[in-house]
Amino acid sequence: MTVRPFSDRLADAVHDKGSALVVGLDPFIERMPEAVRKSTDAGTSPRGDERQRAADTIALFNEQVIEKIAPFACAVKPQIAFYEEWGPAGIEAFERTVVMARDAGLLVIADVKRGDIGSTAAAYARAFLDPHRSAAASDAVTLNPWLGTDSVAPFLQAADDFGAGLFALVRTSNPSACELQDLEAGGLKLHQHVAALVRSWGEDRVGSSGYSSVGAVVGATAPRELQQLRHELQGAWLLIPGVGAQGATAMDVAPAFDKHGLGAVINASRSILYPYSDPSDPKWADAVGAAAQQLRDDLREASRAAATQA
Amino acid sequence: MTVRPFSDRLADAVHDKGSALVVGLDPFIERMPEAVRKSTDAGTSPRGDERQRAADTIALFNEQVIEKIAPFACAVKPQIAFYEEWGPAGIEAFERTVVMARDAGLLVIADVKRGDIGSTAAAYARAFLDPHRSAAASDAVTLNPWLGTDSVAPFLQAADDFGAGLFALVRTSNPSACELQDLEAGGLKLHQHVAALVRSWGEDRVGSSGYSSVGAVVGATAPRELQQLRHELQGAWLLIPGVGAQGATAMDVAPAFDKHGLGAVINASRSILYPYSDPSDPKWADAVGAAAQQLRDDLREASRAAATQA
Repeated sequence: MTVRPFSDRLADAVHDKGSALVVGLDPFIERMPEAVRKSTDAGTSPRGDERQRAADTIALFNEQVIEKIAPFACAVKPQIAFYEEWGPAGIEAFERTVVMARDAGLLVIADVKRGDIGSTAAAYARAFLDPHRSAAASDAVTLNPWLGTDSVAPFLQAADDFGAGLFALVRTSNPSACELQDLEAGGLKLHQHVAALVRSWGEDRVGSSGYSSVGAVVGATAPRELQQLRHELQGAWLLIPGVGAQGATAMDVAPAFDKHGLGAVINASRSILYPYSDPSDPKWADAVGAAAQQLRDDLREASRAAATQA
Repeated sequence: MTVRPFSDRLADAVHDKGSALVVGLDPFIERMPEAVRKSTDAGTSPRGDERQRAADTIALFNEQVIEKIAPFACAVKPQIAFYEEWGPAGIEAFERTVVMARDAGLLVIADVKRGDIGSTAAAYARAFLDPHRSAAASDAVTLNPWLGTDSVAPFLQAADDFGAGLFALVRTSNPSACELQDLEAGGLKLHQHVAALVRSWGEDRVGSSGYSSVGAVVGATAPRELQQLRHELQGAWLLIPGVGAQGATAMDVAPAFDKHGLGAVINASRSILYPYSDPSDPKWADAVGAAAQQLRDDLREASRAAATQA
């Protein structure tokens, strides 16, 4: 392999930035500051179509957000649904966002949660990870494991070919995650079965950091499962949502870090992007930066607490 | 509700067309006829970019396919991965395809297999089903159930608001579907647990056809599971892939039909789109039409056989 594997690039980023923070770029237009929304208003935007205007607003917002959070985050995680909902223009804004983040020195985890049969999964892998196909290829994606190994295989190939990373949804952060993911089959919870698959997918893909490029999404909102899964997935990066707007705190994720502060990256979206109470506040972007810095600091402390206990 | 529910619109389409055939619009450019590929070649296309050219090729191919298959199919099912892989231009081709199919009197099932937390799922529902958001809204979508009820709720809302349909992935057609979907928990296979969720999501959404707008994807490649799930999901439309290139035949899906020939629609993609052995055959589009007609006839026969046995 000529490309450095994602697992090691992520370890470098966490180490160099001193930050395990991933900022989720989930653009809710109605929560954006007035200054951004005004500059792409129907009256002033050269392009009249509603979806194009929304996409322009998103790109403008993300540009300013990325500039402010870049010093404090190791990666961004754009949630593609909030771009897809604006059609082709939204996908254009997604791609612009990927490029802007990369240019700012951030890794990009495309939160796409795809999962499909082999030939279709190959098309998705090309769409999001193949730099020969798109100038806006991401560094990693999230994947839904419900269809099993053959739905993941093309992404494993992308890991080998392009140094890409993947994060399978092992135990998600939403309230009804338990309906299927916590069912017990043969003495193990379903999420533990998926964890076993994640281990098998990753075992030949361990980088010099000791971590593989096949990671797992495990929500911070289920602390018991998080602790158990950390134990079962010792060589896997965990991507942990649920801190901030979804209710978990930095201390809830402390058990996810190894003694060097590696092994886990923590996503927050709405609590970083929309911390200002007044949408007309001209200093909204500073508030975004401050929210990122604060959570980075809280995660550092949580990580140190974990190291002391270990 | 002012809009006729998807379940009834699908029953009408199957009845009026005398066809349970869904044609999967999965554009593989390298398998397309030369005539189509040439007319969007780098040399002749006014738009030079590779992704734009690919998207133009797809739209041109789909236009001719739709014209030929429209008399023989009740619906089309574009697989969005094969459009997403060409970036914004690909999504534009996807939307053009949706509109062309609708104009040809076909229902459109967007094969997107999305599944995400509530606020994200709401964005996906807007993206694919909300006619106020997009002029190219589909009639139905496929959904991945791994995240449970709250990931489906926004789509149930779209069913109520817009008469949309959904098909949850209960038992897929791919070889490794069994890894998770066939695990046994509390005396039931996982796919049966999902079937129970599908029943609960659909019970207040039964139309005058007797079927609900919450259906299930069940692969034809697992005939025993298909038969069992048909029994457990009596009020649900089944969307059945796996016939044709994936190996199952029309007779394999006979048990899925009720005695009126309703209750199941059968998807075939590659076997309909690429039936010609010679890509330079000028009559390629007739071969596509003939393949659709043949499978429609085979499905009619299978459906009659099922009615006789019942």
